[in-house]
Amino acid sequence: MADLGFIGLGIMGKPMTGHLLAAGCAVHVYDLVSETVLKLASQGGLACSHGREVAQKADIIFIMVPDTPDVEAVLFGRDGVAGGARPGSIVVDMSSISPIATKEFARRLDTMGVKMLDAPVSGGQVGAENATLSIMVGGQSEVFRQVKPYFEIMGRNIVHVGDNNGDGQTCKVANQILVALTIEAVGEALLFASKAGADPAKVREALLGGFAQSRILEVSGERMIGRRFEPGFRIRHQQKDLNVALQSARSLGLSLPGTAVAQEMFNAVVAQGGSDLDHSAVLLALEALAGHKV
Amino acid sequence: MADLGFIGLGIMGKPMTGHLLAAGCAVHVYDLVSETVLKLASQGGLACSHGREVAQKADIIFIMVPDTPDVEAVLFGRDGVAGGARPGSIVVDMSSISPIATKEFARRLDTMGVKMLDAPVSGGQVGAENATLSIMVGGQSEVFRQVKPYFEIMGRNIVHVGDNNGDGQTCKVANQILVALTIEAVGEALLFASKAGADPAKVREALLGGFAQSRILEVSGERMIGRRFEPGFRIRHQQKDLNVALQSARSLGLSLPGTAVAQEMFNAVVAQGGSDLDHSAVLLALEALAGHKV
Repeated sequence: MADLGFIGLGIMGKPMTGHLLAAGCAVHVYDLVSETVLKLASQGGLACSHGREVAQKADIIFIMVPDTPDVEAVLFGRDGVAGGARPGSIVVDMSSISPIATKEFARRLDTMGVKMLDAPVSGGQVGAENATLSIMVGGQSEVFRQVKPYFEIMGRNIVHVGDNNGDGQTCKVANQILVALTIEAVGEALLFASKAGADPAKVREALLGGFAQSRILEVSGERMIGRRFEPGFRIRHQQKDLNVALQSARSLGLSLPGTAVAQEMFNAVVAQGGSDLDHSAVLLALEALAGHKV
Repeated sequence: MADLGFIGLGIMGKPMTGHLLAAGCAVHVYDLVSETVLKLASQGGLACSHGREVAQKADIIFIMVPDTPDVEAVLFGRDGVAGGARPGSIVVDMSSISPIATKEFARRLDTMGVKMLDAPVSGGQVGAENATLSIMVGGQSEVFRQVKPYFEIMGRNIVHVGDNNGDGQTCKVANQILVALTIEAVGEALLFASKAGADPAKVREALLGGFAQSRILEVSGERMIGRRFEPGFRIRHQQKDLNVALQSARSLGLSLPGTAVAQEMFNAVVAQGGSDLDHSAVLLALEALAGHKV
């Protein structure tokens, strides 16, 4: 059995590492917060002092950190993974970051004989805790096959999106574009219904039976009507993911007019102090524009 | 059994009237195109010379015409329904028009003792032909109960949205806001995936398993990937429905930023000559902005 590494032991990485340990894997762990490392060590994790040490000891190194610069620092920064990884090592980045930067990171690792997969997830904290994450994977099939058994310990819906590095991140970005715009759509539809004097709960019900049906109308629509905006998936994470989408789009030479408007609406909720609310709270920005509540 | 009337015998009204006739109803029919009236008469319809005559002979008068001004003309124009309807008559407008104008029409009819329901449909030509329309109804419960048996002959998913005149139209507008924005979302997501080098078909498949799932991702997403843009639901109808949404929003004092952007994208497809394509062809506008095809 391969020796594993896990770098980034936050609200996602900690339970994911816990599942690997519970399955009997040897996991070398590291986080910027040493207290977290000690906590994992008490559950059987093998504590390391930096990413380089993790890479020296592990064959497959999982990374779960917040954003693109964090992944870059973990890989190529001081005491980073690149300083310890050996030819044949596999780096699996499960963070949600730029697909373009991902391709570049994979290219740099490849010159050292290190293989990379990008494997961002959806399902959030609850999915991480219950091992029900969806995992979208980009990278060579042969490498995917080697890592798949570990993905299956951490998640449920594992899709190999494509052989290119970055295909998993691209899929995650597409997911976030679709989620953000659909939530805004539900907000505009229910706000219109309410302002025009209809019962938004009745309207939601009626629409669920037709072509406009979506899981987001079901789940986020119900949150909007009940004004239940505790997270869930936080506005500031949605904002960060749309930032990846819009920056990547600009780099690729792509215009995403709907996504740009949706991001401005999320920005407006943050301006109102709502960065830790659920993303369905985009309704608050639309309500502010209208001076009317659903 | 009540005598029925049906005004507007186009691609929707004709098959709907056909179902009422097949169920044994007496239906007094009228259309601006006299040829169409004769065709329905050959199927057992009772031909009339104008809407006023329909209203004189029928207890319940169904209307199915393209837009708000058409309904106004049918009701209050020369030889219109208002000239023939009696106290106790019921007008059922199944067109998709402005909820605000609908409230006004209902108020005017009410002063004459005539009751009104608004009952726009979704499901299009296929739904009309197969009697599988969804019907969203606004108006008094008691009136709804009288008309419901006839709705059940023409459709399948019959929802009484609320007691206010206009609630059905409001629900339809909400539906069209949601549909238009979700289609644009699917277009932006798949275009991003393609431009970033992933396989959009694989991405669609992966996303169908998660929170971004929707009937529109399933149906319109597949059309976009296969470039099958024959209608379906035509861009020009989507454009007209969003026009109702945006005009109503302005009247109500409501800002719908996402819907406005979506309308501009549909406008762009029309500018390219695509007004009779399926609404999933909004992808063509996004592709034009990107200089890249999915």
